[in-house]
Parts: sequence; structure tokens; C-alpha cells
Amino acid sequence: MISVEKALETVLNSTQNFGVEEISFIKSVGRILKEDILADRDFPPFNRVSMDGITIDYESFKNGQKSFKIEGIQAAGSEQMTLQNSENCIEVMTGAVLPNNANTVIRYEDLTIENGVATININLINEGQNIHNKGKDGKVGDLLIKKTTKISAAEIGVLATVGKSFVKVAKQPKVIIISTGDELVAVDQIPLEHQIRRSNVFTLVSLLEKLNIPSETAHITDDKIVLKSKIERYLKEYDVLLFSGAVSKGKFDFLPEVFEELEVKKLFHKVAQRPGKPFWFGHKSSLDTDKLKENKYQKNTIVFGFPGNPISTFVNCLAYFYPWYYKLVGLDVEKETAILNADVTFKPNLDYFLQVKLSYKFGHLIATPIIGNGSGDLASLVHTDAFIQLPNDKNEFKKGEVFPILRYR
Amino acid sequence: MISVEKALETVLNSTQNFGVEEISFIKSVGRILKEDILADRDFPPFNRVSMDGITIDYESFKNGQKSFKIEGIQAAGSEQMTLQNSENCIEVMTGAVLPNNANTVIRYEDLTIENGVATININLINEGQNIHNKGKDGKVGDLLIKKTTKISAAEIGVLATVGKSFVKVAKQPKVIIISTGDELVAVDQIPLEHQIRRSNVFTLVSLLEKLNIPSETAHITDDKIVLKSKIERYLKEYDVLLFSGAVSKGKFDFLPEVFEELEVKKLFHKVAQRPGKPFWFGHKSSLDTDKLKENKYQKNTIVFGFPGNPISTFVNCLAYFYPWYYKLVGLDVEKETAILNADVTFKPNLDYFLQVKLSYKFGHLIATPIIGNGSGDLASLVHTDAFIQLPNDKNEFKKGEVFPILRYR
Repeated sequence: MISVEKALETVLNSTQNFGVEEISFIKSVGRILKEDILADRDFPPFNRVSMDGITIDYESFKNGQKSFKIEGIQAAGSEQMTLQNSENCIEVMTGAVLPNNANTVIRYEDLTIENGVATININLINEGQNIHNKGKDGKVGDLLIKKTTKISAAEIGVLATVGKSFVKVAKQPKVIIISTGDELVAVDQIPLEHQIRRSNVFTLVSLLEKLNIPSETAHITDDKIVLKSKIERYLKEYDVLLFSGAVSKGKFDFLPEVFEELEVKKLFHKVAQRPGKPFWFGHKSSLDTDKLKENKYQKNTIVFGFPGNPISTFVNCLAYFYPWYYKLVGLDVEKETAILNADVTFKPNLDYFLQVKLSYKFGHLIATPIIGNGSGDLASLVHTDAFIQLPNDKNEFKKGEVFPILRYR
Repeated sequence: MISVEKALETVLNSTQNFGVEEISFIKSVGRILKEDILADRDFPPFNRVSMDGITIDYESFKNGQKSFKIEGIQAAGSEQMTLQNSENCIEVMTGAVLPNNANTVIRYEDLTIENGVATININLINEGQNIHNKGKDGKVGDLLIKKTTKISAAEIGVLATVGKSFVKVAKQPKVIIISTGDELVAVDQIPLEHQIRRSNVFTLVSLLEKLNIPSETAHITDDKIVLKSKIERYLKEYDVLLFSGAVSKGKFDFLPEVFEELEVKKLFHKVAQRPGKPFWFGHKSSLDTDKLKENKYQKNTIVFGFPGNPISTFVNCLAYFYPWYYKLVGLDVEKETAILNADVTFKPNLDYFLQVKLSYKFGHLIATPIIGNGSGDLASLVHTDAFIQLPNDKNEFKKGEVFPILRYR
């Protein structure tokens, strides 16, 4: 049995680069950018009018002129006009190019317009006002979004602005989620007394969806020969195999045996934590000639063998698969912490992932423990938002102390 | 001009129920549940073995017996066996039904098995240990997930367990996002000097995607006749029209005029806030005979006319559209607060939505202001995570004070 720290370190050392793909920018939310995004032109690209009103040559106003004959209208999206006479003005619309020979914009609110003449009703005007100058927000070639940023709505707007209709993002690993156990039946079936429905695989599919990783699912019966032949195939076809169950000590828990026979190298089995202790982790490296041709790297398939209990599988996906993914795409995710809202005693020499309900109070994140019925009590996850990680170096945890959390809502 | 408070109240009073639809449970993550989910059987549905090992009749152990002949193996997913002789034992696997006539499970770690006989190596055993009793986590008919819960991976597991392969969720409003302005060209085009690419519509599409609302987009040129005829059609076909731009004072900002002619009732125009002030909000109620037949409700189309500046549109979507959506689906979203990390002075009598970078420190959520170049500086959103809302009732905001935030990552 190894510590949570050591287990995480081992998992993080088993990452690899799955390369880059180019996708439509509008489908890229949640994906990890794999190119720097530079400004394709100055921003704004021209001296941009930022208020609806008129534009004048400030010199005339300075000389005492208050009324200006309107020469025309400079609309947004029209080619740049030229102010022909410095004693006249041009009406200008927000987003328009500032006309030539003009340098100051006065908004409608400060004007009276009558018979084609605009009269300024205020005394204080600053030269250059209400103009968003060319290049003020950025120069052509400026770095707008750094490589390895997670794309959100904010980045989508920038990608559109600079014309990146296709964008390079980290390729996702190809994942299959496998359930085992003859007691499991399909969701739309009525189970017999000794059966239950499959649920962990769908929980895992949803947890991976949060990372924008599509996954496939499979179910294998507790038959060693079938298990071995299917797993052999999956090891070739997928980058990651996620198992739920069949890694403890049972007679029909063939997985560790099958892994050994298939030369999947065990990196650890069992972690000093509750829930989620019987976690098996390993990988199979093999020279895959197709992949070699394509990408010149050795194929390495990662195997996460999560315990079958629903909460164990859930917490291990958050505690190990998530950081593994963040590392492989190069994402630096800040660890969240929360304030424990009750005293907790936990005797075993294990890290304790305790379910908590989160709330906000004066800028503080409060974690209130909710005690469920143990690792089989799937429904208890509905009433909580996160796991708070209480380390194994002590047994008493006090209200008000701060610990890291693994949050799932 | 109305206050942010009053504007939000008006928006929240314009919600309506779009009804319920039934979808596959595996597609339901992020959607709002519209039925109570009850346990279809006790959970666990049988006395469930929770450790791999043997099961015995505790009475024999109490009478001093330590070695038990193995009668057979009770596997997970097999029908319940019966212990024939109370001086024997049955091997049992995690997840299996507890055999008849047995009541205590001893794990392999505490046993030696030789020649078909299991010998217990420890002295202390509790009657009933390592059994997850029928109905311990819940009884048939128990409420497992309340109506109006937002579905996450945790709920997916429960839905699978109780066999809800299809689930009732709140129907999403049908939304179209419309850009106007002749200066805008498509993302894959090279703009002329006085043109820029469309970007706000895609930002809005992405912000709505976070709510799992699919949306369509359209662009209309600054031509009043075209605007009017297209908007007339959209008012009939969609539940919500989201505009970006064309609601300020410009000559070609036809929207308020067009809305009036189309009998879209203005509820407010301009809110005392920065950025996002020229926000137009209204609705059109009409008896739509098709809808009437179907659902017996009057069609009410909501119009959000957001300002054209990228940051204004962004903040208004978070500040108004999000709460509007939460209210209509019945979701009670706790308002997040954060601790201001610098002194801020803001003179205008407006609510100030200030861009901030968030970080966690000892369970505290810290908001560090990042000053951009004003509401046109889309790229600045890349460097921040949220807006902190500084109220208009004062001008000086001190480091350490707590204010609500609108978070977008």
C-alpha cells in the first residue's frame, strides 16, 4: 500500500502527449489551446469612434466656434470620409472610422442639431475625446492568448476577432470505460433480486465529459478468457482503460491476473486512503508500428483500475484521473481549499476524502461534512458538492482548519 | 435610466415556463431535473457482502469454532445460496447476496485457507460484520433526487441505479443571437481597414452553451426594412432574441424604433452601470394559435438588446440572462462573493462591474482587479475570471471588503 502522495506522483509520471488537432473555433470551448494567438492587426484597427455624435477639428472649437455645419454621416462599416472644411463637422456612429482631418468626437447628448447644423452645448471638450485610438488595446503581432490556455467564452471572442476560424488544441486521449461483474444489468432492465444496474460507468462518462473527453463504454462478464481477449484488444485500440470494480481480493476479480498475463505493468495496487483504497494503476508500453509511422512515439496505454464501490470510483476519478489529464495537456490548475465547518475525528492511518457541502460566506468557502453510509452509498453524492482531503498525519481535524478540496459541482 | 437592482427585478419578472421534455439520462448532465427521483427498491436491494472472504453462522464462532469447511462460492450476480451446515462456511465475493443461514463475513486477510478449509486467524469478530444490510442506504419509495436539481455526474449514477433511462428535464428556451452593424464581416474573411470581424455572437453562443442552451445566430445589415422583416419572423419563431449592438443613439441604430413598430414592449433602456449601460430589454406577448393548441399558453418573446461593446455584452449576459434562465428553470443559485484585493475608487453614480482575477488562499476567494482599456478591450477578458460588482452607493472600495462576483471560469 502506498500513500496518496506517492500514488499521485506515480500517476503524474505516467502522462504522455497525445499531440495536437485543428478544430473549428466554435467547437473549442473547454479544450486546451495549443498555439499562441497573436493579433493579426492593431486593435482597434483604425481610430475608432466610441460615441454617437459629431466629429470636428478641435482647433476650430478652441478658436471659439460652437456651431458646425454637417457635411455628412460616417457610418460604422463605411470607408473613411474626409472632413472637407475644418469649420464643418461630420456625424459619426459608434464603431465607425474617424474621418480624415477630424480629431475630436462630441456625443449627441451634448449637442443640439437643427437645420443641418450641430451646436455644442457644453464648454469643456478635450482634444481627442471619444476616440478609441488605433492600436490602443494591442499592436499587430501582440500575444493575445497564450498557448495552453483553457478556452472559455472570453477566448472565443478573441479567436473570432483575429480570424482564427480553426484553432489548434490538445488532442484528447481515446478512453474506454469498462465495467465488470456478473451482478450488473443494463439501466433499462429490471434486475433480479441479486442483481443491480450498471451505474459507475455512466458516472465516469459524465465526469470525463466535464473535461470534454468523449468516452466509450463496455461491459465484460466475470469470465477470465473473455476478459483477457477483450482487454487485449482494448489495450491496442485505446489510450486509456478505466475500470470500475474487479480489483479487490475476490475469486472472480480476475483483473490483476489478466493484466499480468497481458504484460500490463502494475505501478501500484492499493492506496492509503478511504474511500478508494483498492485502486490498481499500471500501463502497457509497446511499439505500435502504425502509431510509430504517424507520430514517432511508442504507444503507452494507461490502465486505471478503480474500485467497484460508487463513491470510491468517483473520488479516484477526481483525485487521480483529473490531475493526470491536466498534466498531459499542460494545464496548471490551482488547487482549491475550503474551511472545515465541523470537528472531525478519523482514526485510521489513511487520507480521508470526506464528502462536504460547500457554501460561500463573506468571501470564504465553507465545507460542511455530510456523513453518508459508506462507500456504497451513491445517493449521498447528490447531497454534497466536493470531497475535502484530510491528511493521514493526524486524527483530529478542527472546525476552522483549511484543507484542499476536490470539487465536482 | 434605471438601477441595476430594478433592471434585474424587471428581467426576473419576465420569466416563463417553457415546459418539460424527456431525454436520455446520459445526455442530461447540466440540465434541470423536472421530476422527483424515487428509489425503485431498497438500497442495497439485498443483504450485500461488502468484503471478499467467507461467511459463517456467528453462533459457531461464538462456540469456539475456528475452522470451517467450505461448502461453495457465492459470486456477485449469482442467486442466493444456502449454508447447509452451520459448522461450514461459504466463500463470498464483494457485491454478492449474503447466503441464507449465514450472518457474518470474515475477510480473506484474516483467514488461512488450506484443503478446502478456512481457518480464522483473529479473535475478535462482530456478529453481522462486513455486510451492507438490505435497505440501509434507502427504502423503496425514498426520495433520492429532488425535482429541480441540476444534474451532475453524481445524479447520473443515481438515475442509472434506479433505472431512469429517460428523464424529465426543463425544456430550454429557443434562442437566436443576432448581430447588426455593417462594419462586421465573417470570422474567416479578411476585413477591410474600416471593418472588423463578428465576435460577440460567438461569445454569447459560448456563454449560453455553459447553460446547455443551444442557440442559432444571424447577422442583419443596418437596413431598417430588412431588420424589421427579419425580426418580425424571429419574434414568431424563437422564445428569446439576444442582440449585440445597435441599441445606442446612432443614426443607424434602428433597433429601438423597429421594436416599437413591431409592438415589442420596452421594459427599460439603459441601466446605471459600467460597462453595459445602453442595455435595452423588452418583450412581445401575442396569442400564437399553434402554441395555444399545443401548450395552452400565450407566446411571450423576450428581447435582450445588449450593447455592442464586447465587454458590455459579456457582463450583461452574466448579470441578466443567466439569472433570468436560473429563475425560469427554478434553480436556486447561491451568489458567490469574493474579497477585493486592492483599493478601488470609482466616481460615477453607477454600479461598477470590475474585471478581476480570482485566486484561493486559505479557503478565501481573492479578487484582484485587472484594469483593461475600457469596454472595447475584448482581449482583457482572457486575463480575468470574473466581474466583481461594486455598488453605486459609494465611491471608495477598500482592500479586504467583500462583494458579489459574476464568474465566467
